[in-house]
Amino acid sequence: MDLLIKNGTIITAAETFVGDIAVNDGKIVCVGMNLPVVAEKVVDAAGKLVLPGAIDAHTHLAMPFGGTVSADSYLAGTRAAACGGVTTVFDYPMQRKGFGIIETVEARKAICDVEACVDYAFHCCITDLNDGAILDEFEAAVNYGITSFKCFLVYKKEGMMVDDGTLVKVLLKAKEVGAMTNIHAENPDLIDLYTAQFLKEGKTSAWYHYMSRPEFVEAEADKRAVHWASSVEASLYLVHMADKEGLEAAVAAKREGHDIYIETCPQYLEFTCDVYKREDGRNFVCSPPMKGEESKEALWKAIRQGAIDTVATDHCPFQSYEKDWGKDDFTKIPNGCAGVENLYPYMLSAANEGKITFNRAVELCSTNPAKLFGCKQKGSLAVGKDADIVIYDPYKDVTISVSNMHSDYDHTIWEGKKIHGYPVQTYVRGKLVYDNGDFVGTPGFGEFVKREPRK
Amino acid sequence: MDLLIKNGTIITAAETFVGDIAVNDGKIVCVGMNLPVVAEKVVDAAGKLVLPGAIDAHTHLAMPFGGTVSADSYLAGTRAAACGGVTTVFDYPMQRKGFGIIETVEARKAICDVEACVDYAFHCCITDLNDGAILDEFEAAVNYGITSFKCFLVYKKEGMMVDDGTLVKVLLKAKEVGAMTNIHAENPDLIDLYTAQFLKEGKTSAWYHYMSRPEFVEAEADKRAVHWASSVEASLYLVHMADKEGLEAAVAAKREGHDIYIETCPQYLEFTCDVYKREDGRNFVCSPPMKGEESKEALWKAIRQGAIDTVATDHCPFQSYEKDWGKDDFTKIPNGCAGVENLYPYMLSAANEGKITFNRAVELCSTNPAKLFGCKQKGSLAVGKDADIVIYDPYKDVTISVSNMHSDYDHTIWEGKKIHGYPVQTYVRGKLVYDNGDFVGTPGFGEFVKREPRK
Amino acid sequence: MDLLIKNGTIITAAETFVGDIAVNDGKIVCVGMNLPVVAEKVVDAAGKLVLPGAIDAHTHLAMPFGGTVSADSYLAGTRAAACGGVTTVFDYPMQRKGFGIIETVEARKAICDVEACVDYAFHCCITDLNDGAILDEFEAAVNYGITSFKCFLVYKKEGMMVDDGTLVKVLLKAKEVGAMTNIHAENPDLIDLYTAQFLKEGKTSAWYHYMSRPEFVEAEADKRAVHWASSVEASLYLVHMADKEGLEAAVAAKREGHDIYIETCPQYLEFTCDVYKREDGRNFVCSPPMKGEESKEALWKAIRQGAIDTVATDHCPFQSYEKDWGKDDFTKIPNGCAGVENLYPYMLSAANEGKITFNRAVELCSTNPAKLFGCKQKGSLAVGKDADIVIYDPYKDVTISVSNMHSDYDHTIWEGKKIHGYPVQTYVRGKLVYDNGDFVGTPGFGEFVKREPRK
Amino acid sequence: MDLLIKNGTIITAAETFVGDIAVNDGKIVCVGMNLPVVAEKVVDAAGKLVLPGAIDAHTHLAMPFGGTVSADSYLAGTRAAACGGVTTVFDYPMQRKGFGIIETVEARKAICDVEACVDYAFHCCITDLNDGAILDEFEAAVNYGITSFKCFLVYKKEGMMVDDGTLVKVLLKAKEVGAMTNIHAENPDLIDLYTAQFLKEGKTSAWYHYMSRPEFVEAEADKRAVHWASSVEASLYLVHMADKEGLEAAVAAKREGHDIYIETCPQYLEFTCDVYKREDGRNFVCSPPMKGEESKEALWKAIRQGAIDTVATDHCPFQSYEKDWGKDDFTKIPNGCAGVENLYPYMLSAANEGKITFNRAVELCSTNPAKLFGCKQKGSLAVGKDADIVIYDPYKDVTISVSNMHSDYDHTIWEGKKIHGYPVQTYVRGKLVYDNGDFVGTPGFGEFVKREPRK
Repeated sequence: MDLLIKNGTIITAAETFVGDIAVNDGKIVCVGMNLPVVAEKVVDAAGKLVLPGAIDAHTHLAMPFGGTVSADSYLAGTRAAACGGVTTVFDYPMQRKGFGIIETVEARKAICDVEACVDYAFHCCITDLNDGAILDEFEAAVNYGITSFKCFLVYKKEGMMVDDGTLVKVLLKAKEVGAMTNIHAENPDLIDLYTAQFLKEGKTSAWYHYMSRPEFVEAEADKRAVHWASSVEASLYLVHMADKEGLEAAVAAKREGHDIYIETCPQYLEFTCDVYKREDGRNFVCSPPMKGEESKEALWKAIRQGAIDTVATDHCPFQSYEKDWGKDDFTKIPNGCAGVENLYPYMLSAANEGKITFNRAVELCSTNPAKLFGCKQKGSLAVGKDADIVIYDPYKDVTISVSNMHSDYDHTIWEGKKIHGYPVQTYVRGKLVYDNGDFVGTPGFGEFVKREPRK
Repeated sequence: MDLLIKNGTIITAAETFVGDIAVNDGKIVCVGMNLPVVAEKVVDAAGKLVLPGAIDAHTHLAMPFGGTVSADSYLAGTRAAACGGVTTVFDYPMQRKGFGIIETVEARKAICDVEACVDYAFHCCITDLNDGAILDEFEAAVNYGITSFKCFLVYKKEGMMVDDGTLVKVLLKAKEVGAMTNIHAENPDLIDLYTAQFLKEGKTSAWYHYMSRPEFVEAEADKRAVHWASSVEASLYLVHMADKEGLEAAVAAKREGHDIYIETCPQYLEFTCDVYKREDGRNFVCSPPMKGEESKEALWKAIRQGAIDTVATDHCPFQSYEKDWGKDDFTKIPNGCAGVENLYPYMLSAANEGKITFNRAVELCSTNPAKLFGCKQKGSLAVGKDADIVIYDPYKDVTISVSNMHSDYDHTIWEGKKIHGYPVQTYVRGKLVYDNGDFVGTPGFGEFVKREPRK
Repeated sequence: MDLLIKNGTIITAAETFVGDIAVNDGKIVCVGMNLPVVAEKVVDAAGKLVLPGAIDAHTHLAMPFGGTVSADSYLAGTRAAACGGVTTVFDYPMQRKGFGIIETVEARKAICDVEACVDYAFHCCITDLNDGAILDEFEAAVNYGITSFKCFLVYKKEGMMVDDGTLVKVLLKAKEVGAMTNIHAENPDLIDLYTAQFLKEGKTSAWYHYMSRPEFVEAEADKRAVHWASSVEASLYLVHMADKEGLEAAVAAKREGHDIYIETCPQYLEFTCDVYKREDGRNFVCSPPMKGEESKEALWKAIRQGAIDTVATDHCPFQSYEKDWGKDDFTKIPNGCAGVENLYPYMLSAANEGKITFNRAVELCSTNPAKLFGCKQKGSLAVGKDADIVIYDPYKDVTISVSNMHSDYDHTIWEGKKIHGYPVQTYVRGKLVYDNGDFVGTPGFGEFVKREPRK
Repeated sequence: MDLLIKNGTIITAAETFVGDIAVNDGKIVCVGMNLPVVAEKVVDAAGKLVLPGAIDAHTHLAMPFGGTVSADSYLAGTRAAACGGVTTVFDYPMQRKGFGIIETVEARKAICDVEACVDYAFHCCITDLNDGAILDEFEAAVNYGITSFKCFLVYKKEGMMVDDGTLVKVLLKAKEVGAMTNIHAENPDLIDLYTAQFLKEGKTSAWYHYMSRPEFVEAEADKRAVHWASSVEASLYLVHMADKEGLEAAVAAKREGHDIYIETCPQYLEFTCDVYKREDGRNFVCSPPMKGEESKEALWKAIRQGAIDTVATDHCPFQSYEKDWGKDDFTKIPNGCAGVENLYPYMLSAANEGKITFNRAVELCSTNPAKLFGCKQKGSLAVGKDADIVIYDPYKDVTISVSNMHSDYDHTIWEGKKIHGYPVQTYVRGKLVYDNGDFVGTPGFGEFVKREPRK
C-alpha cells in the first residue's frame, strides 16, 4: 500500500466512525479497524477527523472581467484550494460569440495541464448560441466530460446575458443530453434602472452596489429561472443563492418534485449588506451582493433543513488597486471576492460550533457537488474512490489573514475571521499537497475530471 | 321626474329587493316602494330585473393592429355596447414614441364626441417613456381623468413592449399620482422561440397560435408582473387573465394584502384551446389564447370565490377576410375577437343558470370596474348615481348570431351560443338607448367619463 | 309617512351617498335625494352618518354560569344594546340533557316578550342529543326560526362539551335542514392539564387563566372544527376567534371554498394577554382569553382583507364581587366581560380613524350577521327592510365609563377607552329607542326575529 | 477473521461500490477492494448486492388483541424476520394500568431471551400514567435502553387510548429524557359514530371497516398529533401513515423544521381500500385500513421525495379462523396482517423495478430506523457496526405464498405477489441465520438492543 491513515474519526455524509483508510495507486482500497496493512507511509490520525476532500463547484480563475483579470491564476487558485482542503475545483470558462464549447474549454485546460495543483473540472458559460451551433455541440461536450452549462440572466451590456428563449433552449438541450444548467439569477433591467438613478443622484458608494441589486431584484430572476425549468421539466442549478424570497420559491419547486438544486456561498452565510457601509465596502462587492439579515438567516435555516444542496465560493478575487477603481463610483468596482481556501474551514468550523453536523458539512462541500455534477470518483471516502482526503484537527484554531492564505491576492474579506478547527493535511489521489500550513504539492499534478452525464 | 321604473326586482352588488327607481336629469333621485311620483315616462318592470348598466373595462375600437384596423368603429362598438347593456366602455388609446398621453387620448376623444352611443373612458397604453417626459405627464393625465395606464410585456417587434425597468418606473409613478397600472402579461422570448420553430417545421394552423403561447408562457409574465408590483407596493390590474398558474400566483399575492386586481373575459370562461383545432380556428385567435380545461375551471372557481375582480371583453373584432390572411400562417391572423355586446348577457345568463348570483354578476361587470377605475358616478343603482340602467327579462332566451348583433363585424365566436335571459332596455343617464332588440340611441350622446384618482 | 331622515350621509356595506330615508309602518319605503315626502317626524341628519342598526350576533343575557348568573338581564342587556346602536341581539339559550330545543328557547322568549328593548334572535346551544331526539327536532327548530346551533368543544366538567362524533352529527343534521353550526373552540384536556399543574404550583393569579389556555390550545380546536366541517362539507361559524394560528387555518379552508365563517370580538382587537398581569386582571377573564400581540395583529389584518366575517361581543358581564371570588384562584373567576353597548361605537371609531372603511364596519356588524343567520329584514338600509337605523355623529367623542353605560354591571373592561364619533340616535323598526345619551325605548317592544334557513 | 464477503456490490444509504467486507467477533472490521484477508468463512457475492440488514420498527408479536393473541410468537416472528432479511425487530409491549414500563418490557424480554432468532428492541406503549408514576419512570426506561414510547389516539373502549392532555405530558417528558413518542392516529369518536350507524343499518361486511375509518378520520388525528408535538417542540413519530391529507400536514410541519417523522407500511403502498370489497376482505382488515388510490400515490410520492422516513410492517397476523369471527360483523375481525418477512423483499423489489434507488430502500428500511431510534450499532455497513448483513440476488424472483413464508400464520395478504430479486443470505452479528430459502439460525441467539437516547 502507498498510504495508511490510521485511527482517525472518519466522516462521510452518512457515517461517523473510528478506523483506518488504506490507499494504493491514488485510490481508497480499504476502510477498516486496525487494518493489518503494510504501507509505505503511515499517518496517525488519532484525535483528528478524516474527511473527503472538498469540491469547490464555483470558481473563476484568471477570468477576464470588469476590465481586468481575476487575481488568482490557475496555479495560485488551485494552490490556495489545496491549502483549504479543496481537492477539486470547478472553473467557469466563458464561451463567446463565434467560439465553440470544447474549444473554449480546451484553451483553459491547456493552462491547467501546467498549473493545476488539485484536480479540476469545467462548467462552461454559454453566452451565444452561434445560430444554434452551440446547441448542436452539447452532446460532444458531454462526451468530453463537460456535463454542465451556465447561463447568465444578467450582464446584458457585457454581452454575457441570455434572454428567456435562449435559456429555455439551453435547458431543453441540456435535458436531452444529460447535462445540468447552472444559472446566475439577477434582473438586468432593474439594476440598470437603479444604477442610472443613483449615479444621477450622486450616490456612488459601495452601499449603492447593494441598493441597485436588492433582494427582490435577485428574487425575480430566481423565480423566473425556476419557472422555466419546472415548466419544461429540466434540471436547474441556481448558483450563489443570496436572498430569502428566491430561495423559498426554489425550495418550494424542489419539494413539488422539480429537478432544482441550490448553491449558496460562505459570504452570504457570514455577512450582510451592512458590509457595504464600511470604509472598505468595495472589497466586498460581488454579484449578487450580500443581502439583509433575514436572507442570511433563511439560508442557514435551509442549510440545516437539507433544502440547500451545495456550498461553493464564487471565488473571484481582485487586487486592492483594482477594487479602488470604484472608490468614487460603485459601477467601476470589479465584482468578486476570495473564498476557495476558506470554504471548507468555514463550513467545518460551523460544524465544530454545532450549527450543523460534520456529516452535513461534508455533504454540502463534497458529496453533493460530486453527485450533482457527475464526478463519480469524487465526493466520499468509499472504497474505490479517488483518495482525496483531508485530515482535520478540530482543536487547531486559525485566524484568517491575507498573510496566512496561499493565493496571489493582497486582501481578503475574511481577514480576522476566527476559525475553530482547521485542515492539517490534504491529499489529492493519495498524494500529500498541503501539510500543516504549507503547500507541498506540484503545479500540473492536478488532473481534468471527465464527468458523467445525468440520468 | 323624467322617468319612473316601477315594480322591478332591483339588483345591486349587495342587495336584491322589489321597488321603484325615479330618475331626473339623468340621475337616480329616489329608490323606494310604491313611489308616489309623477314622471314623464313610466316603465313597468314587474317580473323583470333592474340592474346597473355594465362597464366594459376592456375594448379596442378602431384600433390599428396586425396590419389593419379593428372592425368596430367607435360608433359601431358603442352601439353594440348599448344593445348588450353596456353603458360605459373603456377604450385603450395607444401612446407611441414621440407622442404624449393627453394628445393621444384627445385624438380618440374627438372621434367619440361624434360617434359614442354610450359613455366612454380611456386607459392609455404606454409604449415609450419619451426619455421620461411621459412619466412627467402622468399627473396631468390623472387630472384630465385618465387614471389608468397599460403596459405590454409582449409585442416586442410591434414596438409596444416595455422592459421590466420601464414597467417598474410606470408602477412607481402611477402609485405616486394615484393611477392604476394595467398589464398584458405574456413572455415574448418564448413566443418567438416557439413561433420560429413551428414555422420552420411547417406547423402553421391556428392550433400553433395556442401552442406558441401555452399556459406557462402567460403564467411567467403574470408572475413577474405580480412580483414587481408587490415588491414596490404598487397597484396592478392584470387584464384578460387566462391561465390557472398565473391566476393562482395573482390570487396568492392579493391575499397577502398586495394591491393586485384580476380581469378575465367571457371567452376564457366559455372556450378552451380546443377551438383552435376547428376549421375556423383562426376566428378565435386572440392573445392570450384560450387555454386548457383546467384553466377554464380555475377561472370559474376564482369567480365564485371572489378572487377575480372584473369580467371585461378585450373586444377587438376583425372581418373574416382579415382573419383569412392567416389561413396558412397563424402569425398573420389579426389577434382579437368580438365581445362587447355579449358580456352582460353571458354573465347574467350564468347567474340565471345558478353558476353565480345576479349580485355577483353585477359586481363583476359594473360595480367593481367602476370602483377600481374611479368612475364615481357609475356602477350601482344608488341614489345620486348616473341613471345607467338595464332592464332584464330572465325569461327571454336569445341565440347569439352575427345577424342579431349590432356591430360592424361579419362573424362572431359566439355564433349559436344560447343565452338564457336577456336585456330588454338600456338607459344611459336616463335616456333609452336600446329597446327590445333595437338600438334607439344617438351617436355622440355618449360622454367622456372623467375619472378620479385612487387613494 | 311616519319618519323622514333627511340629508344624512347614508352608509351601507356597499355604498356611501347623501340622501333621505323615508320610513312607514316600521319599514324603509323610500331612499332618495330631497324626497318630497310629508312625514310625521322629520330628522335632519346633515353632517351625520346614517347606518343600519348593528346586530350583535353573540350575547349571553341572564345566563347561569360559573355558579352565578351573568349580570345583564334581558332588559338591561337590550337597553344597553339600544344605546350602543345595536338593534338586534342574538342570545344563546342553553339546551340541557332531557330538554328540547324549542322548549329551551321558549323559556327565554317568554322573558324577552316582556323585557326586550330591541329585536332579538336565538342561537341554541346543544349540550346533549337526548339519544338523538334533539337531532330529530332540528327541522322543527328551523321552522320555528332557530336556524343556528352551537356546540362547545370545551367545558367538559360543566356538562356543556360535545365530543367529535356529536359535533359531526350536529354538522350533518344542520346541513340537512339548512342551519348553521356555531362552535366554541378550545381544547379541554390541555386546559385541565395546565390548570392542575398551576394550582399545584400555587400559580393562581389571572395571568394563569391565560397561561392555561394559550394560543395553541385554542388553535387545535379551531383546526379540528374546521377539519370536520370541511370534511363533511357542512357550514361552520367559529365564534370569538382569538388566535392567529387557528385564524389562518380557518381562512385557508374558507379560501379553498369551504363554507367556513369567522367571528371575532372587540376585546381581541383591543387588548392582549398583558391585561391579565394587571391588578384587576380578573375583570378581563373570559374564554377564550385575549392572546399575544401577534394574534391581535393577525385579526386586524384579516378584518382588513375581508377574511373575517363578523364582529360580535360575547357580552357576558359579571359584577365585581363575583369576579372577586377568583382573586386568589383564577379557576373561580366567572368567565365573561361586557360589550354589547361598545361594539358599534368601537368598530365605527376604528373606521373614523381610518383603520377600516365605514362600509366595512357596517358589513361586519350588521350586513354579514344578517345574511349568515337568515335575518332577511335586517342588516341594510335597502328599501323594504326593517327601519333599524343608527344616526352617528362622527365628531362626537365619548370616553367609555361604567357611569355612562346602560347595563346593570358595576365595572367594564372598556373603562377609559376614548371613542371618536358616537351614535346619537337609534331606531328599531322606525321607533326611536335611544336619543343622545338616553334610553327612550320600551321594554317588551323588541320582537323575536324568525329566521330563514340557509340554502 | 471470521467471515469475508467478497466481490459484492455494497449498498449503503449513501454509496454503491464493489468490494469486500471482513467480519470478526460479530462486527464489520474492514471494507475494501480485494482485501488480502484470511477468514474462516469466505462468501463470494459477485453479482449480488450486499446490504445492511433491515430493521422492522413496527411489529406486534404474541400480542393479546381483539380477544385473541396475534398469530406469531416471538420465535415464529423473528424466524420469519430472518428469512426476510430483517436483522432487528421492534416489538410493542403494552403497559397497562397499574404496571410499570420496565416491568412490562422485562416480561417480554424474558420470552425473547429464549425465542428471539434476530436482535430485538422494544418501544413501550403507554396506556395509563398511573397517577404520574409512569412519567417518573421514563428516565429509568431510557437508561434501560427503551428510548421510545407509543400512545394511541384510538382504542378508547379497549382502554388503550390516551387523551390529548396525557399525550402532551408524554411528549414533554419524552423530550426531557431524550425519548421519541410514537403515535397511532385515528379519531375514536368518528369511528364509533360510523360503526354504530353501519351496524344499525346492517352494513357489516369488511368494506364497512374501511367506511368507518375513512381518510379524514385518520387525517384529523394525524393533524392533531402534529399540532401538539409542534406546539410543545417535542419529537413525534407517526406510525403506519396511510392517508394523503394527514401525510401532507405532517410533511408540512417537518419542513417547517419540527421534529416530526413518518412511517408507512408496505400494505399502504401496495393495496387500496378496494381489497375490502373482496370475498376475503376481512383478511386485509388492519387499522388504519388501506385507503383510496390518491393516498397510495401520495405515499409513493413522499417516499421518492424523501418526506417519509421509514417503512415498517405493523406485523400482527391472525389465523383464518380468527378472521372468520368477523365474517358477518366487521367489528369482530381481529385487526392486523402479516408483513415482517415481506418488508425488505418488497421495498428492494421496488428498487429493482426502478421506483426508488436501492440506496433509498436501505435508508427507509435500515439506516433511518437505526438513527431515529438510537440503535448505534445497526443500520449500515460501516466499519465498527454489527455485521447485520443481507446478500441479495437481484435476479432471483419469488412469488409470495403462505407456503414459502416462515411464520406460523395460515394465510397472507401477500399471497401471489411477485417479487423481483430476493435475499439469499441473512447474517446477524456475523452469524448466518437464513440461507437461500431456509432458516438456519437459533432461537435465543437474538440479543436485546439497548438503545441510546436522542440528543
